[in-house]
Amino acid sequence: MSLSVSPALSAPPQPERVEIQLGERSYPILIGGGLLEDPASFGVVPAAASALIVSNTTVAPLYAQALRNVLADRFRTVHLLELPDGEVYKNLETLNLIFDALLGHGSDRKTVLFALGGGVVGDMTGFAAASYMRGVPFVQVPTTLLAQVDSSVGGKTAINHPLGKNMIGAFYQPQLVLCDLDTLQTLPPRELSAGLAEVIKYGPIYDMAFFDWIESNIEALVARDPAALAHAVKRSCEIKALVVGQDERETGLRAILNFGHTFGHAIESGLGYGEWLHGEAVGCGMVMAAQLSQQLGGVDAAFVERLTRLIERAGLPIVGPALGAERYLELMRVDKKSEAGEIRFVVIDRPGSAVVRSAPDAMVRDVLAQCCAA
Amino acid sequence: MSLSVSPALSAPPQPERVEIQLGERSYPILIGGGLLEDPASFGVVPAAASALIVSNTTVAPLYAQALRNVLADRFRTVHLLELPDGEVYKNLETLNLIFDALLGHGSDRKTVLFALGGGVVGDMTGFAAASYMRGVPFVQVPTTLLAQVDSSVGGKTAINHPLGKNMIGAFYQPQLVLCDLDTLQTLPPRELSAGLAEVIKYGPIYDMAFFDWIESNIEALVARDPAALAHAVKRSCEIKALVVGQDERETGLRAILNFGHTFGHAIESGLGYGEWLHGEAVGCGMVMAAQLSQQLGGVDAAFVERLTRLIERAGLPIVGPALGAERYLELMRVDKKSEAGEIRFVVIDRPGSAVVRSAPDAMVRDVLAQCCAA
Repeated sequence: MSLSVSPALSAPPQPERVEIQLGERSYPILIGGGLLEDPASFGVVPAAASALIVSNTTVAPLYAQALRNVLADRFRTVHLLELPDGEVYKNLETLNLIFDALLGHGSDRKTVLFALGGGVVGDMTGFAAASYMRGVPFVQVPTTLLAQVDSSVGGKTAINHPLGKNMIGAFYQPQLVLCDLDTLQTLPPRELSAGLAEVIKYGPIYDMAFFDWIESNIEALVARDPAALAHAVKRSCEIKALVVGQDERETGLRAILNFGHTFGHAIESGLGYGEWLHGEAVGCGMVMAAQLSQQLGGVDAAFVERLTRLIERAGLPIVGPALGAERYLELMRVDKKSEAGEIRFVVIDRPGSAVVRSAPDAMVRDVLAQCCAA
Repeated sequence: MSLSVSPALSAPPQPERVEIQLGERSYPILIGGGLLEDPASFGVVPAAASALIVSNTTVAPLYAQALRNVLADRFRTVHLLELPDGEVYKNLETLNLIFDALLGHGSDRKTVLFALGGGVVGDMTGFAAASYMRGVPFVQVPTTLLAQVDSSVGGKTAINHPLGKNMIGAFYQPQLVLCDLDTLQTLPPRELSAGLAEVIKYGPIYDMAFFDWIESNIEALVARDPAALAHAVKRSCEIKALVVGQDERETGLRAILNFGHTFGHAIESGLGYGEWLHGEAVGCGMVMAAQLSQQLGGVDAAFVERLTRLIERAGLPIVGPALGAERYLELMRVDKKSEAGEIRFVVIDRPGSAVVRSAPDAMVRDVLAQCCAA
């Protein structure tokens, strides 16, 4: 496996294309190198007088000018808004900065929003697009691995509330998702690992052949081999497209994409947003969810060990913070999957397949005792 | 025409029913006396563990206990949240009080919200329902005439932004609209008149026979004759249902329901929200829009005079505040119907029919000069 980091040599010359099939809300995901600077990438974006690029103070200096340049041909005015960077800012107050900018610029209801950044920028910009004048078009330009393989795809948008993650939001689909693989080369190592958590996720819940492939290529992925990243992003998007196409609004199947997230959200919320990255919390949460799956009889100890090792090799934490079992349980009861106070977990019922179910509190306490720091 | 105010004598014993036909998002509007206290009214509401009634400090003391009592049979817990009363509170900060309450009560995603109040409560509760956990069911229980004939029907939800009215929101349909006509008997006279503005609106844009009926019955309506109110609410809801059923997301036809609103929003925003009631601003805005329609050749002076007199007889202002023409124009450019800075007005192209179009600034200035206080 080549470990070259030169996208010009190994990234595919033509973008790969994955379609999200949702009737009149269908849209393409384009995956490739140099897409951000290529006018041809934006063919499906509706015509309008103005565009607003929403980014953050970390990503904007790297890529906003390139995006502005390419959009200048399509829009009479292109404005840029830089939000503060971090999950801790994914709240109502920061969201309102987007509305202030839109109204300050006199943006009409054809204005197109571009979310240039990671999951936080994408989730907030998407919710702003869903709500501004009751809905304007938007485009996802994810610049982190996590956003490219998961959060930018499928139309889930949200902000956090002090009492729970992603509690306020909308299902609202973008017009286009543009995964420029070159942006992954500037990603801090911690962010790359966080993204790998969501890549790994697709294995146990849906595709064990992909899991095998990730195991064989984890070093290449960590080393940012462009061809390995291209395959990981494409296959992740394909699986997400298949699931979302069957259950856009998460009335059933789609919930399996939250494998590791019930425990993970509790870690994020319990430590304070931003302490652990979302992907780090999900990585560790998958270890916990795998242990729970074993206790419920869906997988054996060897499977749990195999998944745990892969998560570790991806550079992710596998031991949870010592919040105390009761605090974990309290935090998990606020999860969106909970019903009438009963926590519902995504568990593996056999390798490559997941279901949503409840578990006895005692069993969850046991899992937490095994998986958390003393 | 009887001017009796005893609902027991003249309100229809069985509720009237108007259907909003929107495929899987269809729902009924029930119209009648005593509905709020009748368990049979709530048959279509989905089962859930908990309900949250959102009301305000004016309406809650009158009707919240009755609603709590009737809901106690269907929900294990029924909570009440009282918001401050008034358009000035229809903002992000007050919206967040609803999220605080939902999360504070540990509400899951089957929790049903009940909007008990006027347009402000309905618009904010609807947007909270659209956004909480990306969507929970909600029921409109409008207690003002304006909310019963217009704002509670059709799924438009929103909050205001300092730079524009209803700029942040969602199209999100309720499960049920319950128009208890008895609540109109406790309405302050100014609020009743404000509601009549939206009733009158349906005449010039859609149904001149209804306009004739309103003209013949305006004294009975102002005196709150239950049979007259019942007919006005029912016919208004029927027209709104016909329009919304053809164009849920306002890509075309639905915009005619904003007759008088472009001028009206400028009045509300220019004076500061809450100075004039929404319906008062719409009443006066219709006088302006009728004058503009005449200048554009859609109606004659006699029609404008007839509409103006009816608005006046309903107890509504017919002379606009002296904001200055340039300020009106500036405020109207922020309207959601504007495109690329061009204001678009709903005008009458012949009695009973409306279209959306632009008009020369000079013509708009002329209309404002005729319709505003010096």
